[in-house]
Amino acid sequence: MPVNLSAPAAAQLHPVPGLRIGVAEAGVRKANRKDLTVLLLEPGASVAGVFTQNRFCAAPVQVCREHLATGDIRALVVNTGNANAGTGEDGLARARATCDALAKHLGITPRQVLPFSTGVIMEQLPVDRIAAGLPAALADAKPEHWLRAAEGIMTTDTVPKAFSRQVQLEGETVTVTGISKGAGMIRPNMATMLGFLATDANVDAPLMQPLAFELAEGSFNRVTVDGDTSTNDSFVVIATNQAKHARITSFDSAAGRALKAAMLEVARLLAQAIVRDGEGATKFITVRVEGGATREECLKVAYAIAHSPLVKTAFFASDPNLGRILAAVGYAGIADLDQTKIDLFLDDVHVAVGGGRNPSYREEDGQRVMKQAEITVRVVLGRGSVSDQVWTCDFSHDYVSINADYRS
Amino acid sequence: MPVNLSAPAAAQLHPVPGLRIGVAEAGVRKANRKDLTVLLLEPGASVAGVFTQNRFCAAPVQVCREHLATGDIRALVVNTGNANAGTGEDGLARARATCDALAKHLGITPRQVLPFSTGVIMEQLPVDRIAAGLPAALADAKPEHWLRAAEGIMTTDTVPKAFSRQVQLEGETVTVTGISKGAGMIRPNMATMLGFLATDANVDAPLMQPLAFELAEGSFNRVTVDGDTSTNDSFVVIATNQAKHARITSFDSAAGRALKAAMLEVARLLAQAIVRDGEGATKFITVRVEGGATREECLKVAYAIAHSPLVKTAFFASDPNLGRILAAVGYAGIADLDQTKIDLFLDDVHVAVGGGRNPSYREEDGQRVMKQAEITVRVVLGRGSVSDQVWTCDFSHDYVSINADYRS
Repeated sequence: MPVNLSAPAAAQLHPVPGLRIGVAEAGVRKANRKDLTVLLLEPGASVAGVFTQNRFCAAPVQVCREHLATGDIRALVVNTGNANAGTGEDGLARARATCDALAKHLGITPRQVLPFSTGVIMEQLPVDRIAAGLPAALADAKPEHWLRAAEGIMTTDTVPKAFSRQVQLEGETVTVTGISKGAGMIRPNMATMLGFLATDANVDAPLMQPLAFELAEGSFNRVTVDGDTSTNDSFVVIATNQAKHARITSFDSAAGRALKAAMLEVARLLAQAIVRDGEGATKFITVRVEGGATREECLKVAYAIAHSPLVKTAFFASDPNLGRILAAVGYAGIADLDQTKIDLFLDDVHVAVGGGRNPSYREEDGQRVMKQAEITVRVVLGRGSVSDQVWTCDFSHDYVSINADYRS
Repeated sequence: MPVNLSAPAAAQLHPVPGLRIGVAEAGVRKANRKDLTVLLLEPGASVAGVFTQNRFCAAPVQVCREHLATGDIRALVVNTGNANAGTGEDGLARARATCDALAKHLGITPRQVLPFSTGVIMEQLPVDRIAAGLPAALADAKPEHWLRAAEGIMTTDTVPKAFSRQVQLEGETVTVTGISKGAGMIRPNMATMLGFLATDANVDAPLMQPLAFELAEGSFNRVTVDGDTSTNDSFVVIATNQAKHARITSFDSAAGRALKAAMLEVARLLAQAIVRDGEGATKFITVRVEGGATREECLKVAYAIAHSPLVKTAFFASDPNLGRILAAVGYAGIADLDQTKIDLFLDDVHVAVGGGRNPSYREEDGQRVMKQAEITVRVVLGRGSVSDQVWTCDFSHDYVSINADYRS
């Protein structure tokens, strides 16, 4: 059961002028499933992406990096059911063959296509079935198909993930709409399993890659379900440049700030949706670390807490066994940490002070917060003034069930 | 259900001359439980210890470090039910009060006592109940009580862990006997939750601390259940020096080599017993990484695999979803890893070659190995000639159940 997350209505998702979406059932792994999605861009769009730091990165990720280097992207093709990772040279050839097939239909070059795959690792991509499914996906293409796309990229997700915002730039209404997928093997390191964010805003092309990094840093790079960084993480940001406002040449301008804020909001909602729908999740946890000397050490502590199976099972049980959080702070890897300076809060409840139990802390106060569906853990390190946060979920029986049965 | 591990018979555990053990029910957390253990040493014993690297180390760990610095240890006192960690200055005072109480009974100084605690974190140690239990523990003290001690230090363990070996040194029979406890919050970083290893061998005192480190590196520092490094990890090595052979002044001598081999064997059995009895464990997994450039990178890869919830749930399901292992290799943190040089074996089955699926690999071969209770994962990095290994277990529904219900 996802935590405070339900499927969006199609009508809530504003189309992005200059972008059409088509979905088909190609039978990549199983029959009767939407498993093939194409995103088609009008000429003139700007596209940037950030990708997994996993050294075992998937074949499509390698091809995306190559194709983005030359630019002028016109189409994205996404399959589920097979990750095309751990597949060697043959996997690379199959990713390229997918691009070739779509390019032929569209009368463009294969380098103008970005391929994405998600699913089981170390099995060969059935490129023939994908190629056979492309005509149906192309025939389906419409600007209104964002919800279909969110459904088309799901694997163990239980809910399609899509958000949309509109902002006024110089009196013109500009749209930001995005989709994401992912529920397990989630500790994005540059991006998530798959996230696509598009706007019709008119943005100077050189701004796009730094923007993609900045958006990932504020969203997908701050969520974790199980600490497993995927081989296929990809986050793509698209500006179709169809809106009529003056081209944005800096995010320090009023229009630039407004656009970036809307894009960050949608990116963060998409990233948080992955945690809310995390495999087996029953709680949505914000882990905020304050008073650090550096951002890096804040994140070390936040991830140590967010990855601890003992902390996560305590949240599942609504058990304020909060010493487990202190233990995780202690092993997070800050060599000169002084435990006597650590404070711990659970929402508004001051649990530990100076490294020990707060004398005024009462078990029933901790219990009250632990029963909530959304909880903020706040650790104050007493070392400086830097803070950062990550979002995660608890660890339940269903996580084990889902991952013990995934391929069967 | 522990994996190929059952309780030892008391008769298999050889007493160590110069060391007596007493156990009592002090009601530290719950009534009618053996929860207080004392180990009493004759004068002249040598004691060394290695302790957790968790910066939130428990009060008794801090006191142990102080007391070992002055030497001449005569007694160890261990309680379960309460870890005395995350307890601040008051916790330190309570650890010292425990030493004071035992020292008074024995007519020694408090600095000759080492205290150990294990159990719930961030609750104050009931030192009055421990002091009240000491007379019963002292009255119980006998050299034959190793099995009782192994029972007396258990928390979520399902089986007492004790092993014993004898070796001939210069024609004299010398004993090595040890106990350990631990099942969750296990990723020892210098030691395990609690491990005690004793011999009556006559060992030059300056050899003891390096010996303790070396034994930990070959045993407790190579096991992990859930990646959570405890606040209380302690591994203590005792030589009572009562045996009549010539004092060992170097482990390069024949007697030194024989003794160290026996001690390493017992330490490794004790460490592996913790994994075999890991919370919810159904399988015992050896993760061996070969062909590394450094020991550090071999261990990074081994621990990434051993900590991945996705890998561990696949083992629980006996599902050869082995791409998850490649993904873990990829995110282990070797920046310049070349995926095209990686080979993966599951026992004798060659699963992946050059970073991709081995063309001759058949799913049924992987399936056959995955069904075993003991499995070796072998990763060859193709970067050098260094190898190392860790031992871990799978991740089951019972892990969640045990840790969601631990305090209730």
